[in-house]
Amino acid sequence: MPIEGRRRVAVEDVHPTVNAGRFAAKRVVGETVQIRAAVYADGHDHVRARIIYRHEHDGEWRYTDMRSMGNDLWEGEFVPAGVGLWFFRIEGWIDHFDTWAADLSKRISAQLGVLADPQLGGTSSPAGQDIPLALATGAKLLSKLSIENSGVDAGLLQEFARSLQRLSESRVTLTETPVTGEWLEVVRRNPDLRFSTQTSEFLLRVDRKRALYSTWYEFFPRSAAHADRHGNLYDAARLIPSLAQAGFDVLYLPPIHPIGLSFRKGKNNNVQAAPDDVGSPWAIGSLHGGHTAIAPELGGFREFDELIRTAEQYGVEIALDIAFQCSPDHPWVKSHPDWFIVRPDGSIQYAENPPKKYQDIYPLNFESDDWRNLWGELSEVFLFWVKRGVKIFRVDNPHTKALPFWEWCIGKVQRSHPDVIFLAEAFTRPHLMYGLAKLGFTQSYTYFTWRNTKEELVSYLEEITSEPVCEYFRPNFWPNTPDILPFSLQKNQRSVFIHRAVLAATLTANYGIYGPAFELMESRPLREGSEEYYESEKYQIREWNRDAATSLMPILTTLNKIRAEHSALQQNRSLRFHKVDNPDLLCYSKREHEDLVLVVVNLDPTHVQSGWTELDMSVLGLDADGTFECRDLLQDGRYTWNGPRNFVRLDPQICPAHIFHVRRSLSGPGGIL
Amino acid sequence: MPIEGRRRVAVEDVHPTVNAGRFAAKRVVGETVQIRAAVYADGHDHVRARIIYRHEHDGEWRYTDMRSMGNDLWEGEFVPAGVGLWFFRIEGWIDHFDTWAADLSKRISAQLGVLADPQLGGTSSPAGQDIPLALATGAKLLSKLSIENSGVDAGLLQEFARSLQRLSESRVTLTETPVTGEWLEVVRRNPDLRFSTQTSEFLLRVDRKRALYSTWYEFFPRSAAHADRHGNLYDAARLIPSLAQAGFDVLYLPPIHPIGLSFRKGKNNNVQAAPDDVGSPWAIGSLHGGHTAIAPELGGFREFDELIRTAEQYGVEIALDIAFQCSPDHPWVKSHPDWFIVRPDGSIQYAENPPKKYQDIYPLNFESDDWRNLWGELSEVFLFWVKRGVKIFRVDNPHTKALPFWEWCIGKVQRSHPDVIFLAEAFTRPHLMYGLAKLGFTQSYTYFTWRNTKEELVSYLEEITSEPVCEYFRPNFWPNTPDILPFSLQKNQRSVFIHRAVLAATLTANYGIYGPAFELMESRPLREGSEEYYESEKYQIREWNRDAATSLMPILTTLNKIRAEHSALQQNRSLRFHKVDNPDLLCYSKREHEDLVLVVVNLDPTHVQSGWTELDMSVLGLDADGTFECRDLLQDGRYTWNGPRNFVRLDPQICPAHIFHVRRSLSGPGGIL
Repeated sequence: MPIEGRRRVAVEDVHPTVNAGRFAAKRVVGETVQIRAAVYADGHDHVRARIIYRHEHDGEWRYTDMRSMGNDLWEGEFVPAGVGLWFFRIEGWIDHFDTWAADLSKRISAQLGVLADPQLGGTSSPAGQDIPLALATGAKLLSKLSIENSGVDAGLLQEFARSLQRLSESRVTLTETPVTGEWLEVVRRNPDLRFSTQTSEFLLRVDRKRALYSTWYEFFPRSAAHADRHGNLYDAARLIPSLAQAGFDVLYLPPIHPIGLSFRKGKNNNVQAAPDDVGSPWAIGSLHGGHTAIAPELGGFREFDELIRTAEQYGVEIALDIAFQCSPDHPWVKSHPDWFIVRPDGSIQYAENPPKKYQDIYPLNFESDDWRNLWGELSEVFLFWVKRGVKIFRVDNPHTKALPFWEWCIGKVQRSHPDVIFLAEAFTRPHLMYGLAKLGFTQSYTYFTWRNTKEELVSYLEEITSEPVCEYFRPNFWPNTPDILPFSLQKNQRSVFIHRAVLAATLTANYGIYGPAFELMESRPLREGSEEYYESEKYQIREWNRDAATSLMPILTTLNKIRAEHSALQQNRSLRFHKVDNPDLLCYSKREHEDLVLVVVNLDPTHVQSGWTELDMSVLGLDADGTFECRDLLQDGRYTWNGPRNFVRLDPQICPAHIFHVRRSLSGPGGIL
Repeated sequence: MPIEGRRRVAVEDVHPTVNAGRFAAKRVVGETVQIRAAVYADGHDHVRARIIYRHEHDGEWRYTDMRSMGNDLWEGEFVPAGVGLWFFRIEGWIDHFDTWAADLSKRISAQLGVLADPQLGGTSSPAGQDIPLALATGAKLLSKLSIENSGVDAGLLQEFARSLQRLSESRVTLTETPVTGEWLEVVRRNPDLRFSTQTSEFLLRVDRKRALYSTWYEFFPRSAAHADRHGNLYDAARLIPSLAQAGFDVLYLPPIHPIGLSFRKGKNNNVQAAPDDVGSPWAIGSLHGGHTAIAPELGGFREFDELIRTAEQYGVEIALDIAFQCSPDHPWVKSHPDWFIVRPDGSIQYAENPPKKYQDIYPLNFESDDWRNLWGELSEVFLFWVKRGVKIFRVDNPHTKALPFWEWCIGKVQRSHPDVIFLAEAFTRPHLMYGLAKLGFTQSYTYFTWRNTKEELVSYLEEITSEPVCEYFRPNFWPNTPDILPFSLQKNQRSVFIHRAVLAATLTANYGIYGPAFELMESRPLREGSEEYYESEKYQIREWNRDAATSLMPILTTLNKIRAEHSALQQNRSLRFHKVDNPDLLCYSKREHEDLVLVVVNLDPTHVQSGWTELDMSVLGLDADGTFECRDLLQDGRYTWNGPRNFVRLDPQICPAHIFHVRRSLSGPGGIL
């Protein structure tokens, strides 16, 4: 038998939850957390429910009532006041007084009906409702609530009870209920929770806004110098004003640590490096140090601090790439050989994907007997850079490190620095990608890079913006990365670069590009059939003509400005696709309060495409046949549209997309925005 | 930090589970339990998974391997050997030897490729695969497995290790992998589980087959006599042979306990009973006793035992109706007044739904301070009748009793008597109905009684035969009950009675009728707009002409025979609807191994309806354009059909349904059955 068998209320199907409460759902500060649950009990007694919640560092619980939405579903919300981990439970209980009050009204109506029509009667006779006895029952309920209540309302409850008791004894014929709104309010704030049911605790990770809405620009500092010189962190800092001006708010640098010499890769990933080859920044560690050192050719900590200061000054952030792997020259190889796999001949196992070999990289062995010290040291790497002012980390290949490590490490860092953001650079199987997000990664790379057709884009976006995925997986869309020059971008078609940027920037609130390769439309692969860049910056310094007339920077700047000015584009939850009768035209909307953005993209790189939309007017919050104004934020046109069917025509040679700001037309009777 | 941080495998999304393991999924003995889960780890190491399971009374765990279905999904199954509660977990681990063996094959192929074409090379050079070192690594892995293994395979593993070591030292050029199927098999049965991940325990309630497939007939024993005499349990027993002959296997009696005198209801629910009125069997308790007594007018325990014996003899079971409520004359009212709600005037609260009053019924108060003794006594009622040979209970209005009570009570009864079946008679809101099923009820009444149109039937059946509902909710379809003469049956249309019986008998594996009202097509309601029967047996004895020429018993007998002969109709899992281009024609199939049944029902009570099917041939397991034979089990016709489109025509005046047994045609190239 349970300890208390009188907990009659069941609470089920709580949303948002991830793996039934095993992991945290994610929100950002200021975002309303809408909570839903099924709350029900046996019989016909009235049920109530509330949310109990607190911040991890807050000793006291807060409460907010839930509302019945019918069919035993309840809803409530709260707005988390700060970043960090929040806990919530749902509590449900029987409200006997409310049940009694509703019954009393029915009794009085029935009694009045009988008085009016004494013929009424029969099997469901409302006669003899015995209202005095009902009133006495109510008085008893209130009196009990008053006794259990030690607060300021005890006297009020006792007063209501006495008033009901007097009415009961007076035998006056009531024509309406004596229960006032005030009574119900006082009772409601003094619930009888003796037999209430509480769920277990559910988790909510609340991040700062940049976790949900951010605009990334990745570049190699060593290519940041003009002329044929090795760029450094000063050069990188000099790029900040223009990148900030273009609307990028996260500037992300590939690893800045000392690069190994042993088995250093040459240009175009050649196994033989020339003496002046600079090596891959992901071959981390040399006699100059490892993950907490800076490559001397990039500068030192003075330059680094300057970089951070400049970024702060321009309201942007520096994101570092943390790649937990070592070159054979990394200090850990000597100090902690047991953190690596030792082969039967005593050598350390390099990275392999047979038959491919990566002899310049030693992977860490997460099955090491010394895993505790390994975990500790890795977590200290993050904390080291956090102390240097870095709050955003792009984590390289997290899917090749033990999953329990990430849960522990991210938890540890965020416990003392809840504003730290981790982006998971995992391009792997769906369960593993989603698993990393559940374990704590704030944002995630996605399959967007390879989703090109309308069908592919709709199906993928619907998957990641619906429950349960949208509760924990925050997509960050990249049209390219230093590792991926997708086939779609290998034809040097300006329209494709633009429409991929438009898709990335408007389908999700987090997006990024690897530049200047992107805005300068770098299109040449290492060889046909490969997605590697030719003359990849991973292995050599590149000189870029950042001021080229053909640069896409102006249009990226416009895109970023549109994002900044439209809160609809700063979240993913409201994304909805609309039908268009042309398979090359993709149409979708996003809406946040008053702000409504409608996007149409022509996915065909070469041909003009046109078609008729079939807008879901209720999704847009517009009358079914309303007139509304579409102002194109990209091309500056203005259109008056009407109802769901409207004609669109996009010439990829001019501009492959409309980004409409939609407003109810001033002239027509139109929509409701 | 966790105690063991090297558990790299994650196991998620386990099916079947109910509320993430809080409740048991349901199966019957002999049914295969198909278990699915997502099992994955970081990186590229090979993963394995198995199911660990045991019966509640079995101290030892059993194991069965799962298979990879791709995309990190794994599947396995076991067949529970007995009724009762079963527990299962999923265990996942890294198989380092398997990973190594696969890599070795790739190395050997690459090496051979290099030997054949020494030009091959470059950045992903397969040259220098260092196979001797790889062989030594394999030897080390096997040697480690051998050391950890204390069983009979330790020697074998050591032998394999030595053999690899010898190969490694011999420097022979391998042209194929030395790893044999036998090696893999031996390694597979000696998994290295040091860092394995186990899920928490999931529950499975395994019932006997009748929980899933049963055919109920409800009747009032007091109307079982011929002539105008009060029928008794002997009379009831005399009906058994013919009901068993008609294919019913559960004969269910309304409460057989002593009926209260106070506030006894008269005929047609009249508040004034005449002196010879027999009262409602649901007003339980008199000076003759309560829930463990038999109404004297029905006989005594000798008659009851005889009834049970006769049922056993004919292979059918007696189901009792347990209604936990009391007449004012019930012994508990005196012995345990604290089990009821006492009103301010000292009287006991009768049942009410204001303004309606049910003064002949006292509900039990599950918020009583003495709830422990109340629970105990109620559970003893079930155990009392179990000892008398009853193994099936139809529980009256379980949704008006505290939910935690049912979980405890059903658990207690089934712990000692795992073959006991509980049918929940709850017609209430969906969450509460499903909640009762989760808490332990074996079968449940449903909304079928009010689902009449094609759209209503398809949507309801799809809901209850899909996950998650199908995992715990076993529907029992009733076209009528003593409480419900649905409007659809109030027009005395033979075709409607027949098609409702066909739907009930073929849509779900559990169905029942309340007779003889059903087979004699009793159609008159208490008054227009009411679903109560006129001259309801709830309040009076009825005399029935069971041999009437118009009785539907012959067609019910045929239906029950079809069910008995077709295993496809003895389960619900395979139910699928097929399109027909006529909204009055409903078409669906069920399939179990070789047995395939296809049903077409005309829902229009008066008009001939015809149309073309659009069969989902893959659901039927037939070739897309295959020819197949449909033998009508109801009307004895035979049709040769071809492909998805076939013409059907049903005249409700002749027979409103086809129940086809489908077989691959002998002549055509056809299907695969």
